[in-house]
Amino acid sequence: MKATAIAPSNIAFTKYWGRKDEVLRLPENGSVSMCLSNLLTTTTVEFSPEFEKDEVTINGGGLEEGEAQRIIRHLDRVRKMAEIDQKAKVVSNNNFPSGTGLSSSASGFAALTLAAIKAAGLNLTEKELSILARQGSGSACRSIPSGFVQWLDGDTSEASYAQQIFPPNHWAIADVVAVVSEGKKEVATSLGMKSAQSSPFMQVRLSRMKEKNEKVKEFIKDKNFTEFGELLEAEALELHTIMLTQRPALIYWTTGTLRIMKLVPHWRAEGIPVYFTINTGQDIHLICEAENVEKVKAKLKELDFVKDIIVNTPGEGARLLSEHLY
Amino acid sequence: MKATAIAPSNIAFTKYWGRKDEVLRLPENGSVSMCLSNLLTTTTVEFSPEFEKDEVTINGGGLEEGEAQRIIRHLDRVRKMAEIDQKAKVVSNNNFPSGTGLSSSASGFAALTLAAIKAAGLNLTEKELSILARQGSGSACRSIPSGFVQWLDGDTSEASYAQQIFPPNHWAIADVVAVVSEGKKEVATSLGMKSAQSSPFMQVRLSRMKEKNEKVKEFIKDKNFTEFGELLEAEALELHTIMLTQRPALIYWTTGTLRIMKLVPHWRAEGIPVYFTINTGQDIHLICEAENVEKVKAKLKELDFVKDIIVNTPGEGARLLSEHLY
Repeated sequence: MKATAIAPSNIAFTKYWGRKDEVLRLPENGSVSMCLSNLLTTTTVEFSPEFEKDEVTINGGGLEEGEAQRIIRHLDRVRKMAEIDQKAKVVSNNNFPSGTGLSSSASGFAALTLAAIKAAGLNLTEKELSILARQGSGSACRSIPSGFVQWLDGDTSEASYAQQIFPPNHWAIADVVAVVSEGKKEVATSLGMKSAQSSPFMQVRLSRMKEKNEKVKEFIKDKNFTEFGELLEAEALELHTIMLTQRPALIYWTTGTLRIMKLVPHWRAEGIPVYFTINTGQDIHLICEAENVEKVKAKLKELDFVKDIIVNTPGEGARLLSEHLY
Repeated sequence: MKATAIAPSNIAFTKYWGRKDEVLRLPENGSVSMCLSNLLTTTTVEFSPEFEKDEVTINGGGLEEGEAQRIIRHLDRVRKMAEIDQKAKVVSNNNFPSGTGLSSSASGFAALTLAAIKAAGLNLTEKELSILARQGSGSACRSIPSGFVQWLDGDTSEASYAQQIFPPNHWAIADVVAVVSEGKKEVATSLGMKSAQSSPFMQVRLSRMKEKNEKVKEFIKDKNFTEFGELLEAEALELHTIMLTQRPALIYWTTGTLRIMKLVPHWRAEGIPVYFTINTGQDIHLICEAENVEKVKAKLKELDFVKDIIVNTPGEGARLLSEHLY
């Protein structure tokens, strides 16, 4: 009972911040995202009656207590569904930095979900996988379907899942990630969003999210890059505004994030249509149409503080790499 | 008809952003500030029938067209009050950088107002001076009275002025300014605040300002430094999030500003009671009690990107330096 799955990170154009149910990880609002072709987690799960305890290795190393517990609780969900009680060996590797705003928990829990389900001998629909992944890490549900994806917030666990709105080849846009992080963020997303309601602006934000999601879907459908870009950049600033006005304030940006945020409008003024978005972390995502990727890369290469540049196109969702059922 | 006045910059604990009357410069909300003992503008105004045109020299140099026009319009207000039509020579010097968030327009228009009024042979009350200074630059009205000051927003020009709430010696706190600016800001305050209402959060902010002002006055009265500090730091972040969510977004912070914003909570955790505030610019103000000034300075001296450190105590308002009436 062993399976290996690969799952992408995703970049949210409208963001997930705040939960209406902490245990089920039901988000305060729906969101729209894109799977990323080159930010990937590969996870192997093996269940065996011979294992005496769950063993989790991520990027070749051990885990902090809280992180390990969160993964074991997710394995428990799978064991409950499969009605098994075997312990598991989990080996997971990211091809990108963790804990810096590249959403490794999204790709990680999506890959874990698919690998564990297969290793446990179950077959779930995409919707069921998305619901299950969500319970491990909210945004992981968006890494199950392929391409352009919407997460329906839902009021119950069964109603809160992600579905494809357009396949990867619908629109040739790119997410050029500039790695500017300076180590893991001080406060984990999962903890930080518990204080979302302490921002005086959270209710106003929530009252506008439904309309914003409708708009971003329309701009993606119409391939209206300018309106799409304006919306996603404003939305990223709004997300960070909520964090900055929470008590205690959360400041995720590094100096590299800030520098690029301030450069992007100048690059637009020079004729490069590019917009930024930032997850709950430090690294900054530059969204452009495919034909402008080289121009954006050239701009980033001029900046000595950019440690890495990772170009992503709209990607496939979680998929099985191999399956070894004994 | 010549007079020289000196006026301080001021640091706002609750901020001025957005106007309900653009021409009269009536602010959307009241604010509370402190005059700064060591950020000073000295201005000499001379009216003479021999001058053929108004001549303005600031920091030894000329001015941009818009800046000169704003000063000449202010001289026109004084000439109208004094019923004179003589042209003026204005010489003004700041002992600190301009256009980087140290509020040189506040000290500048306060000094100009007092010097011009005296040079024109008029005597105004403090309230009248404050009303007049406000029409040149809103926050200049707060640089007329001494010490701890409140600006009453008012619905008419006569009702919108600043008054002392406590004298300078009421409370031994300090504003340790860290100069981290990288040149003048790209968008002037006066222009930037015209778009305040485009932030989706502006109305929520305004609905809370009255209570916030009452609280900050109470904390100053009680010398409750912790509550005072928490409030002013949250208020600075709130001001900047309004700017971040305006269309187009305004990002005034530099990398130096951001670094210190992120360090301050760590300094508090180490036992130094210090809070930051930021005006509509880049330089960052560290507010602490007098006994902690040396500790805060020592922290700033460790940072190679801090170009200058200016320690201010609660200061005197605008005052006449010399008067030469012919």
